[in-house]
Amino acid sequence: MEGISKKIYMELSEPTQEDSRSDQVRILDELKAWGIEGKISYQAMRQLYPVCEHSGWKFTASLAFNGNMWEVTALEEGNTSDRHYGFAIDLGSTTVVVSLVDCNTGKCVEKASTFNRQITYGTDILTRIFHCKDKPDQLEAVRQATIDSICHTMKILEKKTGIPAASCIQAVIAGNTTMIHFLLGMDPFCVFHTPYAVRADRPGYIKGCELSLPVNGYVYIFPAKSNYLGGDIISGMVATEIYKQDKICVFFDIGTNGELVMGNKEFLLCGAGAAGPALEGGVVKTGMRAEDGAVETVKLEQGEFKLGVIGGGAPKGICGSGIVDMIAELFLNGWINIQGKFVPEKSPKIRKMEEEWAVEYAPDLYFYQEDIDEFLKTKSAAYTMVEIMMKETGITMEDIDKFYVAGAFGRHVSKESAITIGMYPDMERDRIINAGNTSLLGAEKALTDKEVLDDIEGILDHMTYIQFGAVDDFLQMMVAARAIPHTHMERFPSVMAKLKGEIYESHSTH
Amino acid sequence: MEGISKKIYMELSEPTQEDSRSDQVRILDELKAWGIEGKISYQAMRQLYPVCEHSGWKFTASLAFNGNMWEVTALEEGNTSDRHYGFAIDLGSTTVVVSLVDCNTGKCVEKASTFNRQITYGTDILTRIFHCKDKPDQLEAVRQATIDSICHTMKILEKKTGIPAASCIQAVIAGNTTMIHFLLGMDPFCVFHTPYAVRADRPGYIKGCELSLPVNGYVYIFPAKSNYLGGDIISGMVATEIYKQDKICVFFDIGTNGELVMGNKEFLLCGAGAAGPALEGGVVKTGMRAEDGAVETVKLEQGEFKLGVIGGGAPKGICGSGIVDMIAELFLNGWINIQGKFVPEKSPKIRKMEEEWAVEYAPDLYFYQEDIDEFLKTKSAAYTMVEIMMKETGITMEDIDKFYVAGAFGRHVSKESAITIGMYPDMERDRIINAGNTSLLGAEKALTDKEVLDDIEGILDHMTYIQFGAVDDFLQMMVAARAIPHTHMERFPSVMAKLKGEIYESHSTH
Repeated sequence: MEGISKKIYMELSEPTQEDSRSDQVRILDELKAWGIEGKISYQAMRQLYPVCEHSGWKFTASLAFNGNMWEVTALEEGNTSDRHYGFAIDLGSTTVVVSLVDCNTGKCVEKASTFNRQITYGTDILTRIFHCKDKPDQLEAVRQATIDSICHTMKILEKKTGIPAASCIQAVIAGNTTMIHFLLGMDPFCVFHTPYAVRADRPGYIKGCELSLPVNGYVYIFPAKSNYLGGDIISGMVATEIYKQDKICVFFDIGTNGELVMGNKEFLLCGAGAAGPALEGGVVKTGMRAEDGAVETVKLEQGEFKLGVIGGGAPKGICGSGIVDMIAELFLNGWINIQGKFVPEKSPKIRKMEEEWAVEYAPDLYFYQEDIDEFLKTKSAAYTMVEIMMKETGITMEDIDKFYVAGAFGRHVSKESAITIGMYPDMERDRIINAGNTSLLGAEKALTDKEVLDDIEGILDHMTYIQFGAVDDFLQMMVAARAIPHTHMERFPSVMAKLKGEIYESHSTH
Repeated sequence: MEGISKKIYMELSEPTQEDSRSDQVRILDELKAWGIEGKISYQAMRQLYPVCEHSGWKFTASLAFNGNMWEVTALEEGNTSDRHYGFAIDLGSTTVVVSLVDCNTGKCVEKASTFNRQITYGTDILTRIFHCKDKPDQLEAVRQATIDSICHTMKILEKKTGIPAASCIQAVIAGNTTMIHFLLGMDPFCVFHTPYAVRADRPGYIKGCELSLPVNGYVYIFPAKSNYLGGDIISGMVATEIYKQDKICVFFDIGTNGELVMGNKEFLLCGAGAAGPALEGGVVKTGMRAEDGAVETVKLEQGEFKLGVIGGGAPKGICGSGIVDMIAELFLNGWINIQGKFVPEKSPKIRKMEEEWAVEYAPDLYFYQEDIDEFLKTKSAAYTMVEIMMKETGITMEDIDKFYVAGAFGRHVSKESAITIGMYPDMERDRIINAGNTSLLGAEKALTDKEVLDDIEGILDHMTYIQFGAVDDFLQMMVAARAIPHTHMERFPSVMAKLKGEIYESHSTH
């Protein structure tokens, strides 16, 4: 498997009066023998001496693919071809994750993540966008913060592994359209503003030095399909390989926004919608990030809460996965009804707090009626996206082979609870796949498999974008999906069985 | 005629909800309509907003050819296609000449030259080379001085013309192999040291920003044939178009080194040899550069010197063209003999000065026997190069259609005097062409005619290098050529006629 970088060890004859080809031509001729028509970058030209001579003409060339051809980007004395590294980067609005990849094995050596320093300019994306709108200096500051975040994360990896960032040849970055606009210093107001024509959605290969990133070759940036369907989703396609499958799969990435792709090698329907910050604990009064003190699992047994707390200490608040568990448990125990409204007579823990019902899930920590209502909006948006797509295509749940849930949400949330509240469709549990950080995984794949780049062109061509808001019954469907698990409860047979205390047997043909 | 840059004025439809292609794709699609499969540079991506919107989608794209494809490097509001400029640069070891070229007309708008700031590190090339040898920091300082020299000259042009350097798209640089090594920060010791395999001789296109030059596209650097036959000579080929001719021509560039090419569209023989600093007034005791106070023309009439002095004031010394005139006049008047030795009895101006004969050509300014001897070495080297090439090929002076003399020497030196002293061959005067700064002219041509780049490949392929030192009778020929005009005086019939006071009629068939 050929990636987008190479390291080639060469043993060349030294120049003589009979053969006084330049060092440059000597190397290019050798590359031709390897079937490579290449060039030598300016930086590598400056390394020709003393590397070639000092190594006795036994040295290793780093090669970067630049989208058109191979380029020698660095020279090292001796045979260093066993040390061949690159970076895969998931540029998230909250977190920047960098994977140091061994390009010889295609495996991640080490991963590191840090908060995106853009947060200084706004915790949510819209604040950052308005901060920069028509203010080139502030945009430049956000761009710089983005680069700093990546460089800082690379430095952490350098310390952890002893592998210098500057010895890495290529980097691949996947991120949503706004993140890529910030990365390249392009005003991203367009991403959220009609007619949603973005500045650039095919950034391609940019020299590391142009971006002030420490790789000696290029940075490949995943293209976007549209304003809301960014490179992170395209990277997710690459990671899950939905676009290669015979059977139909669903890819679902849910965070502040929800992005959805349904399809196989024949077609790829895609759409995106606002999901709201509920999933990240944003609107829940005692909500918090998934860090020490956050309740991440909730069980309700004989009227008492059993909480799983990150770090094991006393609970300080509740994070996304805890919220999903919480609502599922409240519902299964009848503490909230199908509309998600508290049933106060069910427990003395349900109390009126400042004119609003709430349940005390830990000493002095309350989960409010408003928290539930807000979250149900989010989950109904998520479910409705899937429903619309099925409706548009005539595909039924039975046709779906796999349901990939990407990102932190998929990784942490209990499938069981997500189905109970009607956020995931009710299907065989092993067909629901927590796909992990597919943005990062797709970037790793593109780094180590050059054919993926051709695939990406195909993915973009195949994708058809559905505007959810333009669908006729959209609002009606949203309302129906707000119930727990759904107004049409027959769609959730396993949840119905649970409510009856039965064990549900799947009738799926899969 | 298509150059290596373009400016294309576009009027695009603005994005709508029905057509929400990104600005980037919108421009690339428009380029496709022009038959151009291109890309958009990182810098230009950052200009998409606000240029596209603010201009009402009426804007001008600057395009640079990068060796493989066209790249949009800048965007400007409105139609600026009438303002399309680039730089052609002759990077000389003494002088850096920059021509600001109007790429629409192919004509030079303005030229400026400055001393090469490398001079700080040594007036002659060898001193600079030893200064940098295996000292990367000092090499970097010389590289920086080179870039500074170019940038400073560009700034002068900016002031003179009001055309910002940064609005120029491309630059083309021609220089000898050492100069290009310094420009790129490559240790040039190899240029003068066996086995004369240089570091890089095909630098090609390098991004302006990588070199810290202010063009928004690329810098194309002329390739070299060998250590002594640099990009300045290849550029000279482009300027004179010898490589396209049916008839045989000679191209002669003489400075500290002499480079010679003889040929036509069928073949190109080339060679180079040390000529010595005599031509630049370096070894002559009262020698000086061609600046105010320098004697540039000399006549000897009735025992008295008639001097042409640059700036018109009192003479302070003598420059290259003055020296050639001086020796020719001394010889024609019999003040020196065929061996170039003073004949003291011919004039009271010929005196012994510190044990050495010398002639006082102006009050207290003397031209010494040693000066003459040194210069005759140079001129014999120059003549011998031409002679060897003719001998090798069996070509005679009659076969030569044109004799191009490049550079400052060709421009300032009297053809008549150069023939008299036996430095140029004795041929019809109008077939000797003062070709001017062919290094610069070739660079201008490459900037404004993209086909030249293909021609350059052909030139390099066609060139055959002759090592003058390896020719059998080399030393013998050198000695014979030291006489004025030559030991074999019959080769200089017009000089013989002059000595006899006759008017010489050419028998050339041309």
